[in-house]
Amino acid sequence: MGKEGLNYAPQGKAEPVVEKGDFPFAVAALDHGHIYGQTNGLLEAGGELRWVYDPDPKKVEAFREAYPQAEPVDSLERILEDDAIKMVASAAIPSDRGPLGIQVMNAGKDYFTDKTPFTSLDQLADAKEAVKRTGQKYMVYYSERLHVECAVHAGDLIHAGAIGRVLQVIGLGPHRLSADKRPDWFFKKAQYGGILTDIGSHQIEQFLYYTGSTDAEVTHAAVANYNNKEAYPELEDFGEANLVGNTGATNYFRVDWFTPDALPTWGDGRTMILGTKGYIECRKYIDAGSSGTQDVLILVNDEKEERHELHGQVGFPFFGQMILDCLNRTENAMTQEHTFKAAELCLIAQEKARKIE
Amino acid sequence: MGKEGLNYAPQGKAEPVVEKGDFPFAVAALDHGHIYGQTNGLLEAGGELRWVYDPDPKKVEAFREAYPQAEPVDSLERILEDDAIKMVASAAIPSDRGPLGIQVMNAGKDYFTDKTPFTSLDQLADAKEAVKRTGQKYMVYYSERLHVECAVHAGDLIHAGAIGRVLQVIGLGPHRLSADKRPDWFFKKAQYGGILTDIGSHQIEQFLYYTGSTDAEVTHAAVANYNNKEAYPELEDFGEANLVGNTGATNYFRVDWFTPDALPTWGDGRTMILGTKGYIECRKYIDAGSSGTQDVLILVNDEKEERHELHGQVGFPFFGQMILDCLNRTENAMTQEHTFKAAELCLIAQEKARKIE
Repeated sequence: MGKEGLNYAPQGKAEPVVEKGDFPFAVAALDHGHIYGQTNGLLEAGGELRWVYDPDPKKVEAFREAYPQAEPVDSLERILEDDAIKMVASAAIPSDRGPLGIQVMNAGKDYFTDKTPFTSLDQLADAKEAVKRTGQKYMVYYSERLHVECAVHAGDLIHAGAIGRVLQVIGLGPHRLSADKRPDWFFKKAQYGGILTDIGSHQIEQFLYYTGSTDAEVTHAAVANYNNKEAYPELEDFGEANLVGNTGATNYFRVDWFTPDALPTWGDGRTMILGTKGYIECRKYIDAGSSGTQDVLILVNDEKEERHELHGQVGFPFFGQMILDCLNRTENAMTQEHTFKAAELCLIAQEKARKIE
Repeated sequence: MGKEGLNYAPQGKAEPVVEKGDFPFAVAALDHGHIYGQTNGLLEAGGELRWVYDPDPKKVEAFREAYPQAEPVDSLERILEDDAIKMVASAAIPSDRGPLGIQVMNAGKDYFTDKTPFTSLDQLADAKEAVKRTGQKYMVYYSERLHVECAVHAGDLIHAGAIGRVLQVIGLGPHRLSADKRPDWFFKKAQYGGILTDIGSHQIEQFLYYTGSTDAEVTHAAVANYNNKEAYPELEDFGEANLVGNTGATNYFRVDWFTPDALPTWGDGRTMILGTKGYIECRKYIDAGSSGTQDVLILVNDEKEERHELHGQVGFPFFGQMILDCLNRTENAMTQEHTFKAAELCLIAQEKARKIE
């Protein structure tokens, strides 16, 4: 796994859910490296990548080195006009993701954007309206659950009752700053949206999913720029929030840009899930100080205390489910309501956050 | 280590700081099993145990099985009248700890109580007044740092600059309920004080210590009785709080009574400390799912990623420092101000806590 989260693009087992040609998709807007993870997921599930568009030819060239089958086109319209294309996957600058999604849905295609899906509640409202009007899907790559095998397995264990009723989810989302490799927009709050909106969105999605909450209240939120004020005054290098869901379960998460240099991966992401009959810990990208292995899951309940190494064992069912959802107009991968609720709550947390000096 | 936290009484290397007879102490009020840990710490540091008092002869008998040198006396007054006694160690019912301390200090002796030291801010105010008036010490057994070797070592690493400026401390304090082994007072809120006051006090002490904060604001707090409403309506089986210290560092902690049956120790206590140049994780009582070892410390900074097994390697310097503080009227083990500030903040968190249903 790379040292920079910005290029984190997991590869899994190819488990196509459709025949070749059943699910043609295109890629547009390559601003964030997550587009590689999104593309991998779609290809492994049987999607057929046809077109790629970005105004920056260098980004297109780099993308085509990984995916030579993607034919470059010279405008977004070329993609939107192609009736065969079912979905447009994109990783635009965060503040552009909402408006791009509306263009895509207006063209009768489903949209699959990198997180965070919006940078304002107005954008969310516009997207909700467009979904209702067009009947299209606005799907989000909440990669820190969907593209992490131990996180997927944690959900399976919970749904099988392994830890009883879920009472709490704690999420830690440290990331390596890699400031010299970041584009300008990464440091402009109007474009990246704030740390709780951006990398916090993963955390809230996980909380809603693991607890089965369909809504939540943000009970506390804070952000800080502890260590980068001079170089990057608009960066928030630390954020935290607490939520209480409509199931009664609570959430605390911390996100930050303080991954130290000696960690061999981009962040020691963790999820700690407490239930009435046990608990689960996911050491997502590294079991620091021990094996170096990723996807380690600790399960302790009333019957057993176990450590599972899950890398390569679970796969990423989200992508195949999403493709089938698009073809069949179902909601098995993730409901639109859940997708939007996670987005809404991270925007509310950001708005509500006190600034720590 | 036992399966019940109520009997957690660590033993360390004997490192006497005084000659035999220099520091005679007595023990009074044996309501909580922590008194064994307090006594071990004092004995290993060279204290001489002379008297034991409790109104319940069974408790005295059990105590004397562990410490036959303790002569039983038939009233607290017998201890208070003995001019040779420097300190009275006690683990009364929480709501009795403050008043007992004032009696002890009024008799010209230092006091060493189990946490939590108070169940109300009024008791704290009374103790502050008595400390000022008598010049005696009101020391507290915040065992989850003072009597845990990896927690002690974390402090040493931080003070040596291993992780830069400390930005955040996350503390997890799960405990096994062991309801059938608990006394009645354990379930009466007026006596145990609430979960944030009780086991939360450890957490706040650690936060203040690791961050060097001398004061803090409680920004959020919540408690719940998720799973024991019917059997124990006054129990709080879950609590959490967020603080921001006057150093700008933040704290989140969760405490609960949900340790599952298959965990071989009483709780998977953790401390995760984030700094500008690295982070530390303490797996205090077990490295769950791995080695079974306790006192595991993970250190990752800009130079290294390391796992340390510290059980038996560090010792417990607090007790010797406290004995010397009592003899020399210094404050090297812990200042009175710090001791009281942790107590104050856990009481404020408890008062401020919203009740989650």
